[in-house]
Amino acid sequence: MPVNYTTPSAASLYPVVGVRLGIAEAGIRKVNRHDLTLIELAAGSRVAGVFTQNRFCAAPVQVCQQHLAGHDIRALLINTGIANAGTGEAGLVAARATCGALAALLGLSDRQVLPFSTGVIMESLPLKRIVAALPNCRLTLRGDSQGWFAAAHAIMTTDTVAKIASRQIDIAGKTIAITGMSKGAGMIKPNMATMLGFIATDAAIAQPLLEQMVKQVADVSFNCISVDGDTSTNDSFILIATGGAGNPEITAAAGADYITLREAVSAVAVELAQAIVRDGEGATKFIEIAVGGGLDAAECKAVGYAIAHSPLVKTAFFAADPNLGRILSAIGNAAQAHATLADLDVRTVKLWLGDLLVAEYGARAASYHEADGVRAMAPSEILIRVDLGRGSAQAKLWTCDLSYDYVKINADYRS
Amino acid sequence: MPVNYTTPSAASLYPVVGVRLGIAEAGIRKVNRHDLTLIELAAGSRVAGVFTQNRFCAAPVQVCQQHLAGHDIRALLINTGIANAGTGEAGLVAARATCGALAALLGLSDRQVLPFSTGVIMESLPLKRIVAALPNCRLTLRGDSQGWFAAAHAIMTTDTVAKIASRQIDIAGKTIAITGMSKGAGMIKPNMATMLGFIATDAAIAQPLLEQMVKQVADVSFNCISVDGDTSTNDSFILIATGGAGNPEITAAAGADYITLREAVSAVAVELAQAIVRDGEGATKFIEIAVGGGLDAAECKAVGYAIAHSPLVKTAFFAADPNLGRILSAIGNAAQAHATLADLDVRTVKLWLGDLLVAEYGARAASYHEADGVRAMAPSEILIRVDLGRGSAQAKLWTCDLSYDYVKINADYRS
Repeated sequence: MPVNYTTPSAASLYPVVGVRLGIAEAGIRKVNRHDLTLIELAAGSRVAGVFTQNRFCAAPVQVCQQHLAGHDIRALLINTGIANAGTGEAGLVAARATCGALAALLGLSDRQVLPFSTGVIMESLPLKRIVAALPNCRLTLRGDSQGWFAAAHAIMTTDTVAKIASRQIDIAGKTIAITGMSKGAGMIKPNMATMLGFIATDAAIAQPLLEQMVKQVADVSFNCISVDGDTSTNDSFILIATGGAGNPEITAAAGADYITLREAVSAVAVELAQAIVRDGEGATKFIEIAVGGGLDAAECKAVGYAIAHSPLVKTAFFAADPNLGRILSAIGNAAQAHATLADLDVRTVKLWLGDLLVAEYGARAASYHEADGVRAMAPSEILIRVDLGRGSAQAKLWTCDLSYDYVKINADYRS
Repeated sequence: MPVNYTTPSAASLYPVVGVRLGIAEAGIRKVNRHDLTLIELAAGSRVAGVFTQNRFCAAPVQVCQQHLAGHDIRALLINTGIANAGTGEAGLVAARATCGALAALLGLSDRQVLPFSTGVIMESLPLKRIVAALPNCRLTLRGDSQGWFAAAHAIMTTDTVAKIASRQIDIAGKTIAITGMSKGAGMIKPNMATMLGFIATDAAIAQPLLEQMVKQVADVSFNCISVDGDTSTNDSFILIATGGAGNPEITAAAGADYITLREAVSAVAVELAQAIVRDGEGATKFIEIAVGGGLDAAECKAVGYAIAHSPLVKTAFFAADPNLGRILSAIGNAAQAHATLADLDVRTVKLWLGDLLVAEYGARAASYHEADGVRAMAPSEILIRVDLGRGSAQAKLWTCDLSYDYVKINADYRS
């Protein structure tokens, strides 16, 4: 059960002009489930993406990056069940073959298709079954909110809920829709993007600005979450702008229209990123970690991740046990991962749970009482605040606790 | 239950001339258990140590470092229950006060005492109860193997077994004893030393060489293990040389006597370090990770730790499920922690489980069959071998799996 998250209704989603979605059962790893999704884009759509930094990045990620360089993307194909990662040269051949088959079906060139895979690593894509299911993906294409709703369910793996988010804004008198979906629940510590995230808008925006925006949005959303500290081989975050809304093309990077659109896209991305944490494998608590007072944002993030990745901190939150020294220890360990923290003076560090001051001057705060700590640990939504007391930079990230069920889910995943 | 480890019998331990050990019940956090240990050293003993890199390092660690600088150490005092970490200025005062009280009792100066604490972070040391128990520590002092055996039990916290190891060697016609003990089961990813490790020898060795040896030994033992990737605030590894065996003082760093002694001390340290992993919280499997073919030992170690710290790899081993793509993903992620790996070419990487070749050329090996993988995952002792295929450096480290019981132990630890 996710922590305070339920999938929005299909009716609450705004369709994006120029985007249609279709799904099919290809029987990739299991039968009787939708495991193949097609996103078809209108001519003139622009696409930008950010991808995993894992050196064992998946074959489809490599093909995506090559095809994106050529622009004029018209279709995205997403399969679950098998990640097509750790599959060497044969994996690249298979990823390209799926693009070729879909291109032939839709009358496109191979390079106009982006492939995405998610699932088990080091197994081969069942190419024939995927190709056989492509016509069904095409037959079920629809541009309304039901299309998004169905696709968000078809891209799930260990997710317990579908993750979708939607906004509507106004730019230059035109109504603009922004709708997205994501999947992921484990192997989540994105570095440049999460497992899979797709956001589309019908705004018109220049290609270089779209590429700038996808990075900026990733840095405040998918790059700020962690479930278990493992960066996936397949992380991809894609931003699509079809131009179907008819606004004058956004071309000024510092202009009000760019900012307005970016904020709306960021809001959708943050909602999708947080949904991944809320649905984190075995999660019972949603934890926001806000670190301020750093020399720069990078060292604030390093402190935040040191807390978010500590199994001891995560199990203490699962138990709702205010064993809060573990957080101090995690802060102290961040120096090992991030060089600028080597001279961190722990006497300037302050730690709060919500509004409850827990530690200062290198020790437990004089005003802190265990009973208050117990109360602060009880809710399903927790805010950890850290002030490093040595600068003005800040960073915010989101994580969950570590429960029996995380172990159970990951010990059982393939069986 | 530890993985293939039982505490050696007291009779199998070699006493160290010049070392006596005593224990007492101080009621520090729980009653009816030995929680205070005194190690008394003969005049002329030499002591060297390495300590945690955690910025929130504990008060006793800070005091140890100051006192070690003055040499002429004659007593070590170790308490369990409370770590005296995250305790600020008051923690330093308390640590110094325990040294002062023990020094007064034994007729020493304060600076001849080294204090050690292990247990819960951010709680105050019960100074009065500790001081009241010091006379009992003194009364129970004994130099035989029973003294070591009792002390190894008294320094345990979440450990399920006491960890002791012992060797006897011959140097210049003199019989030399090397005996040590360690504690630790969680918050284990030492960086310079483990939770607590003490090794004593009655060899005579010059102080600068002892300081060199403690670092060299730590780098092949306590600095090569991980249970959960959390570096403790209190990690300390202490090497004592009393000189009581009567050998001519070892003064040549490259001499045969130095090497002989270092190899024996390393053997004891590796045994103690591995015992910590075998007794790792919830551990059901002991995993050796051997990484070769790297540009230098540091990048080999980074790859090893990326594998050792991946919750997904650790849960797969708990389930004995050969979901081995998770190991490839972990190798690919090491680049994020270690800059020289940014150009790692995954096509040169080879992965084995024991003698079973699992992956090469960036993909599953053609010769690999799932049934062999299942067989290779079954034993309680597993060897993961990685060849990076780009150099001749290597590193070896030890870890354990991640089980339900790890979560249970750490969710319950304080209650």
